[in-house]
Amino acid sequence: MPESPKMLPLVQPPDPGGAPVFERIAIVGLGLIGGSLALAARQAWPSALVIGVDRNAVLEKAMSRHAIDVASEDLMIASEADLVVLAPPVQQILELLPTLPRYIAADAVVTDVGGTKREIVSAAAALPPRLPFVGGHPLAGSVRSGMDAARADLFADRPWLFTPLPGAAEEPLSRLRAFVEVLGARPVTLASPAAHDGLAAFLSQLPQLTASALMAVIGEEIGAEGLDLAGRGLVDTTRLAASPAAPWADLCRSNRDEIARALDALVGVLLSLRDGLADEETVGRVFVAANRWREMVDRSRS
Amino acid sequence: MPESPKMLPLVQPPDPGGAPVFERIAIVGLGLIGGSLALAARQAWPSALVIGVDRNAVLEKAMSRHAIDVASEDLMIASEADLVVLAPPVQQILELLPTLPRYIAADAVVTDVGGTKREIVSAAAALPPRLPFVGGHPLAGSVRSGMDAARADLFADRPWLFTPLPGAAEEPLSRLRAFVEVLGARPVTLASPAAHDGLAAFLSQLPQLTASALMAVIGEEIGAEGLDLAGRGLVDTTRLAASPAAPWADLCRSNRDEIARALDALVGVLLSLRDGLADEETVGRVFVAANRWREMVDRSRS
Repeated sequence: MPESPKMLPLVQPPDPGGAPVFERIAIVGLGLIGGSLALAARQAWPSALVIGVDRNAVLEKAMSRHAIDVASEDLMIASEADLVVLAPPVQQILELLPTLPRYIAADAVVTDVGGTKREIVSAAAALPPRLPFVGGHPLAGSVRSGMDAARADLFADRPWLFTPLPGAAEEPLSRLRAFVEVLGARPVTLASPAAHDGLAAFLSQLPQLTASALMAVIGEEIGAEGLDLAGRGLVDTTRLAASPAAPWADLCRSNRDEIARALDALVGVLLSLRDGLADEETVGRVFVAANRWREMVDRSRS
Repeated sequence: MPESPKMLPLVQPPDPGGAPVFERIAIVGLGLIGGSLALAARQAWPSALVIGVDRNAVLEKAMSRHAIDVASEDLMIASEADLVVLAPPVQQILELLPTLPRYIAADAVVTDVGGTKREIVSAAAALPPRLPFVGGHPLAGSVRSGMDAARADLFADRPWLFTPLPGAAEEPLSRLRAFVEVLGARPVTLASPAAHDGLAAFLSQLPQLTASALMAVIGEEIGAEGLDLAGRGLVDTTRLAASPAAPWADLCRSNRDEIARALDALVGVLLSLRDGLADEETVGRVFVAANRWREMVDRSRS
């Protein structure tokens, strides 16, 4: 499927004649993020080799969309890569990490795109020095998933968070920052994997769980006939409720302490509202705080 | 301010040569809903008289937008209306209702646009038979409020709920249904004010309170710097957090028992998630239910 021409400016390299930041990019897992990364990298650096690793059914889709140059179900194909991107769900990243040295023969920068970072960065600390690891998390997504939903412009103007290992060399991080910048993303280096996981719990996982819980509760109560009356408010607030369960169950397990803290904070405010519904001041306090933060969200996006 | 031409088809009467359903329409309170109703009525029936009652500052805005034909701060001006629409916040509707017979001299249909119905319909039961009352609630809104945000097409394709008094005559309801249909809305008659308030708690007030609580919690935790990283998921889920406090505090008080039930249901699901974050089945159950209901929302709007 050819990319729409209007996407091109977003992912064009700042110096179109520039050499690829990495020459042989292996992407393990061609879901929404891995597939979009493949499409974006092929578009940004036609001379680079993009290597896809996944199940054959997924590889066929990726090939037919020209997302990858070579494909295999066997990680061995990534042996000569100079960049290895782990893009399956978090649990599989954790299982893959210890096996990498057996498959990757030469020196290579290793990163991932998982939505939590403490477990992954800690597992990656055991990699040999020739495989320097930098945790990564592009804040880009869709309620649709899989290679079918992949888009070359998924990362355009989106933050891409990095959590380098403490005391790690600067070079792998700076190359990765340059790499994602050419893909249109805004690289952001965080202080630690723990800082990332606290942030992601509130920024990403709490809105997701809230939207899903809200939709489930409303649907159970008012049914299809009631939902037929839904307006834009309900529709927007529950848009994320279309997200698939599996990757989110994985993130919930991996980041459960921070997500529990986020859920407790939300439940605390909801219960204060519940007990103060007749009290203008209680309700007003929540709305005024919400108005203020929401204005900042709008301002930062305008 | 002239209406955009593209809005016209939405609010044009089915029979453009038809006589107005009401000849003299008094609208008390020209906020978002009352102001939009005035604009839509003037557009639909150029021959009808639209009478505005509000504070002078609001009336000036309404006049300059050609939303009303005559204006006064005194409800006496509505004396000869054949339709009186009460469009201020719920608490003010409750205070206005007992005074209506003193101001409205002749026979007139009376309705309101308040977001809760039990208190209002119960207060309206004391009106004399020459002022038949039908509770109304257009499911249309905006996070913006006031005459400035009013739009002639606010009700286009939106449900307009009615809760007639038990045993009331058919005619006032059928005229009101015809009236809002010409304004582009879908009239829906509900079984009772109690049925309305249960529905509205889940359909409207719960998403609003959840969005506000979520935004307040996230902002307090991650601050402006963190919010700068917000993606579309967070942005959509918290869009309603821009809503103003006053009208919602009013609805919270008026519908507190049903809203408490809705908040309890949501808190119940959030706490089950909190205690089951490591359990794929618990998380999966909520997501699968949410997916199913969300699909119905999408289907009913496509």
